[in-house]
Amino acid sequence: MASPRTWTAALMVIGDELLSGRTQDKNVAQVAVWLNDQGIRLAEVRIVPDDSARIGDTVNELRAAHDYVLTTGGIGPTHDDITVDAIAAAFGVPVVVDDQARAILTEYYRDRPGGLTEARLRMARVPQGSELIPNPTSGAPGVRIENVYIMAGVPHIAASMLQALTGKLEGGRPVVSVTVGARVPESDVADLLRETEAAHPGVAIGSYPFFKDGLYGANFVIRSEDEALAKVTSDDLSQRLRNVGFEPVEGGI
Amino acid sequence: MASPRTWTAALMVIGDELLSGRTQDKNVAQVAVWLNDQGIRLAEVRIVPDDSARIGDTVNELRAAHDYVLTTGGIGPTHDDITVDAIAAAFGVPVVVDDQARAILTEYYRDRPGGLTEARLRMARVPQGSELIPNPTSGAPGVRIENVYIMAGVPHIAASMLQALTGKLEGGRPVVSVTVGARVPESDVADLLRETEAAHPGVAIGSYPFFKDGLYGANFVIRSEDEALAKVTSDDLSQRLRNVGFEPVEGGI
Repeated sequence: MASPRTWTAALMVIGDELLSGRTQDKNVAQVAVWLNDQGIRLAEVRIVPDDSARIGDTVNELRAAHDYVLTTGGIGPTHDDITVDAIAAAFGVPVVVDDQARAILTEYYRDRPGGLTEARLRMARVPQGSELIPNPTSGAPGVRIENVYIMAGVPHIAASMLQALTGKLEGGRPVVSVTVGARVPESDVADLLRETEAAHPGVAIGSYPFFKDGLYGANFVIRSEDEALAKVTSDDLSQRLRNVGFEPVEGGI
Repeated sequence: MASPRTWTAALMVIGDELLSGRTQDKNVAQVAVWLNDQGIRLAEVRIVPDDSARIGDTVNELRAAHDYVLTTGGIGPTHDDITVDAIAAAFGVPVVVDDQARAILTEYYRDRPGGLTEARLRMARVPQGSELIPNPTSGAPGVRIENVYIMAGVPHIAASMLQALTGKLEGGRPVVSVTVGARVPESDVADLLRETEAAHPGVAIGSYPFFKDGLYGANFVIRSEDEALAKVTSDDLSQRLRNVGFEPVEGGI
C-alpha cells in the first residue's frame, strides 16, 4: 500500500500588535486544531509586521512550499489594513471591488448607522481572480486566491470563517493524539520514552513537563496518523511506566 | 544628524505542541515586550516543528537577516529536545558537554532525587563555542552561540533567562506606544486616522477595533521611536476625534 499523502499548510499571522507584544495571539492554536480536523498538517507559522513587502515575500515563499496558506489580520477598513493589497501585488494582479462582496456589505450595513461608507467599501476589495470566504459574524468576507486563504485577525471572526471553510479543503488523515501523564520528572523516563518511540515507527512522542500542586510531572503525547498504532503505543508506554514504578494517567494530567 | 540605527531580532518558537494546537504560545508576547525594552525590534516570528532540518535551515536564514535570533523550546532532557543538536549542525560545529553547565547541574541536582542522571546531563550539551545563559529558575542553562540565544520553552523559565540577559544586548531606542481609545466604529474614522498618520512622519498608527459591553469601539496605537513625536501625534489625534464628535480616551479603553 502506498503511503498516504500528507497535506501541509502554513499560517501567516499579520500585525504589528503581535510583534510589539500588545496583543496575545489566539489564532495559531485554533487554526492548528481546525487544520488537523481537515486532515491538513500545520507545518509552520510566520508572524510578520504590517509591511507590504514582508507580507508579499512571505506569502510567495509559503504558497510555493505548502498545499495551503492561511493568513489572519489586516483586512479591515483602516489604513493599516494592507493584506489584500500586499497579496495582490505578490500575485501580480490588480485589486478590484468584488460585486458579491459589495452586495454583502450593502446588505450588512443597510440598517447600521452610517451605512456603507467609502471606508467600509474598502472591505469589498479583493485581488483579481479571488473567491469570497463567508463571514457569518460581521459581514466583511474573507478572500481566497489560488491556495491562499485570507481571513480576519479578530479571533472569533477568524473562527467563523474557518467554520465556513470546514470540509471544503482537500486533506488526508488527521493526526491522532493520545496523552499519558505521570507524576514523574521527565528526565527520569527519558530513556524509556526514547525506546518506546523507537519501538513504534510511525509515532512521535512529545514530553511536556509541568510543576503543579508542588509535584513534578509530565504529559507524554503520542501522535500518529494511525489511530490504532497510537493506541498500541499508548498502552505500551503505560506498561513501561508501570514496570518502573510510575502510575500512568490515561488522558494526561 | 544621522538617523539612529534600528536593531532587529527574530524569534524562533520550536515545538510540535504549538503547531498541533495542544499548547497556546506565551513566549511571543513576553519576548516582544522584553526586546523592545532593550531597544530591539522584534521583526518576525517563526514557529517550527521538532525537526532538525527545519530548525537548522530557519536559524541560518534568520541569523543572517537580523542582529539577534532568540529561540524558545526543545532544550530539556528528553529525546524530543533537539534544539542544541540542530543549531550546532546548522553552525557546522560539534556538540560538547560544557564544564560550567555540568557544574551548575551537579550543584542543582545534588539534593534532588536521582541526582545528575545521564538524561539530565544532556542539558549540559552545547554547540562548541557557546556561552551559557543563566537560568535562576531551574538550573539547566540557556545557550548563546554568536547572535543566537537558545532559551527554554516553559514561559516562566524563558522569562528568567530574559531577565538574566537584560541590559546585555546592544540596542537602540525602544519604540514608544501611546494609545487613544474611542467609542466609535473604526470605519467611521478611517480617513481621519490615515490623515493623522500622514501628518506626522515617523509614527505608525494601528487601529484595533473591539465590541465590548454592547458598544463598538477601537483603540488607536501610535508607535514611534520618538517619544515627544508620539505624544504630539496623540494630542493631534485626540483633537481630530473631538472635532468630529467622538470623545478620546487617553490610554485606551
